[in-house]
Amino acid sequence: MYECDIKRMEEKITAFGGFGDTGHGGITRFSLSPAAIQARNEIKLRMTRLGLDFKTDDLGDIYCTLPGTDPDAKVIMSGSHCDSVRQGGNYDGILGVLTAMEVIETIVTKKIPHRHPIQLVVWTNEEGALYEPAMMCSGIICGKFKKEEMFASVAKDGSGKTFGQALSESGFLGEEKNRIEPSKTEALVELHIEQGPVLEAGGYDVGVVEGVVGMINYEFTFHGQADHAGTFPMPYRKDALFAASQALLFLHEEFDKIGDKELVYTTGKISCHPNIHTIIPDEVKFTLDVRHQNPEIIKKCVEIIKSMPKEWANCTMSYKEAWARNTVTFHKEWVDDVENAAQKLGYKSHKMYSGAGHDAQYLSEIVPTTMIFVPSKGGHSHCELEYSPVEWCWKGANVLLNTILEIDKK
Amino acid sequence: MYECDIKRMEEKITAFGGFGDTGHGGITRFSLSPAAIQARNEIKLRMTRLGLDFKTDDLGDIYCTLPGTDPDAKVIMSGSHCDSVRQGGNYDGILGVLTAMEVIETIVTKKIPHRHPIQLVVWTNEEGALYEPAMMCSGIICGKFKKEEMFASVAKDGSGKTFGQALSESGFLGEEKNRIEPSKTEALVELHIEQGPVLEAGGYDVGVVEGVVGMINYEFTFHGQADHAGTFPMPYRKDALFAASQALLFLHEEFDKIGDKELVYTTGKISCHPNIHTIIPDEVKFTLDVRHQNPEIIKKCVEIIKSMPKEWANCTMSYKEAWARNTVTFHKEWVDDVENAAQKLGYKSHKMYSGAGHDAQYLSEIVPTTMIFVPSKGGHSHCELEYSPVEWCWKGANVLLNTILEIDKK
Repeated sequence: MYECDIKRMEEKITAFGGFGDTGHGGITRFSLSPAAIQARNEIKLRMTRLGLDFKTDDLGDIYCTLPGTDPDAKVIMSGSHCDSVRQGGNYDGILGVLTAMEVIETIVTKKIPHRHPIQLVVWTNEEGALYEPAMMCSGIICGKFKKEEMFASVAKDGSGKTFGQALSESGFLGEEKNRIEPSKTEALVELHIEQGPVLEAGGYDVGVVEGVVGMINYEFTFHGQADHAGTFPMPYRKDALFAASQALLFLHEEFDKIGDKELVYTTGKISCHPNIHTIIPDEVKFTLDVRHQNPEIIKKCVEIIKSMPKEWANCTMSYKEAWARNTVTFHKEWVDDVENAAQKLGYKSHKMYSGAGHDAQYLSEIVPTTMIFVPSKGGHSHCELEYSPVEWCWKGANVLLNTILEIDKK
Repeated sequence: MYECDIKRMEEKITAFGGFGDTGHGGITRFSLSPAAIQARNEIKLRMTRLGLDFKTDDLGDIYCTLPGTDPDAKVIMSGSHCDSVRQGGNYDGILGVLTAMEVIETIVTKKIPHRHPIQLVVWTNEEGALYEPAMMCSGIICGKFKKEEMFASVAKDGSGKTFGQALSESGFLGEEKNRIEPSKTEALVELHIEQGPVLEAGGYDVGVVEGVVGMINYEFTFHGQADHAGTFPMPYRKDALFAASQALLFLHEEFDKIGDKELVYTTGKISCHPNIHTIIPDEVKFTLDVRHQNPEIIKKCVEIIKSMPKEWANCTMSYKEAWARNTVTFHKEWVDDVENAAQKLGYKSHKMYSGAGHDAQYLSEIVPTTMIFVPSKGGHSHCELEYSPVEWCWKGANVLLNTILEIDKK
């Protein structure tokens, strides 16, 4: 089995942590921001130095290609994204880019023979932190979003700039003909940090990702009556926050009763109107995000939602489905290759579904795709606490390297 | 018994509803805004036309004086405020000004003899809706707030303007020597809408206000851990919104167990960080406002707060007292005069405490003070639904008129 260079892996992580460094352990590197452009230039510099061909498509997605010995062989792609959320960490997305770069560097420097072209890919705007939505450019490629609408997405920082303008100014706008071609693509393997605590808690070296869990997103709205906190007797009140709190706890209790330990659900966002301490709230909204790989479990959750009382604490409740996705199942053969590579390397692996969304989930609809997870310390992600020791990252890179070489044999 | 003119009362309400009209039943008339300055100019015009002396003090408070027959008699004051909250109603504050104006107009036009000077007062910035805090200028006069600090209060609309600048530009900045002089003031009677449903529900014409209830304000903070909604198994989570919802319901349940129907408590404001639907909340804060005239009941509530668990759903809880006031008791003799005036007019009255704060509660510390309440339709206030039919307002004005004339006899 081949191995990557742990020192080089460490140097890459350190170097890229400098682009958008917040000064306290994390980065803020919105897509197409100056920090993201620094990172992109560094990727271009390092890949062209290794002799790779560098191209971008009309969405700014980066493709760096190392030719193989067979001119007719399809491309094996690996990569992820280099943008982050505000005060995010040094691993989410970028580790998938850096491990792919390290794999290619290993193949080049060790002169490892390979038949297929091997390609680094960097998808533009995965986080959607500045320009919504998330997974924007993989979504455009896979027909989830319309390009014109996405290019009109306005920055959430109040600058008024659109994604299209930012892309034009970035220097990374290429041609549509450079986009990934499914008919000429053998495989896509995306390495990512787990963003959860399961692998670390179980003492696993890598996660063998079988797919991405299905999810539903709901928004609940409670209507009450805004009255004065000091003058309105309790029995007359229609307190929308009191009502919403009851419903929120009800959902937690009912979902817990399903008793499935893979089920995750989150009430992460709340708004309250008029949100003044001396006024009884008249409108409260909260969101619900539910994820599970088994559609039957998701269905049970939807039934709980549908059977909820429509009145809570004298307030009316309504809800709407804001978003949903079905469970995505990755390419079985590549999943097995990842598991075998880990086993041959002597690593302890764990088969699992991804709870988070990734570019790979869209791409899996057009090319045979899989993912590899590296454990996240404490499970923390999307925050400056996000951390995976270099040895864990290096092990992930080794699995990625040997998976690619295994796919190359086919 | 004397009576005011219901047609004139109606005209006043209609005319002043035009200053800051939102176009759908209410007004937005922040203190010292163009709309508030229009209202002030109209007050000045109408009062000087009736022959009253017009003065403002160094806080922009308006004093319009109708001399009495005894040059040595102390002033009897009546009035309220003319500013509103955003999308407030046509009655809160301004009705106390308009009824005092109507009382004075009645005394002037009917040539009702009176020994004491009778004075309209309009306090600046009662709501604190643009420049915090509420009851700013009565608070400065009564030593609750420092003038310099209040003048530096910055507008909440992002304009950067301070209260002091707005006052300078308003044309209503007068001299400190014009402020209310406690030693030369016989009484202050403030008429206000109830802002609650008790009077209407009981079929009462007026509220005889005995004082203002004591209150406590707390802020609770819950600390959890922000993690990814899709990847973090439920047992590992520290969800601050789930924790806060539990604590909020706990407070409602425990306060209800006290079983006192005069007790009111409100959890009106909540904040959630990072407030993203796919991230487990790591910090949630909510406010608690508790009011009752009996300090023993307030004490019971404080004991419940102090005995709360410090951990909820794996999150830590802390709290701080943000604000508190003791119960204010109004001047017994004037309270009786209000009750007698109502009785002699044949009106059904109800003795009660004010749950809301009013300028009168500060002034009662330096001059003998009381209040009269006019019922609020549906109890609604601080919103465009706020409404008191003109007959109710006129009855309130009649009680105010006869109370002032009764005080004048002393």
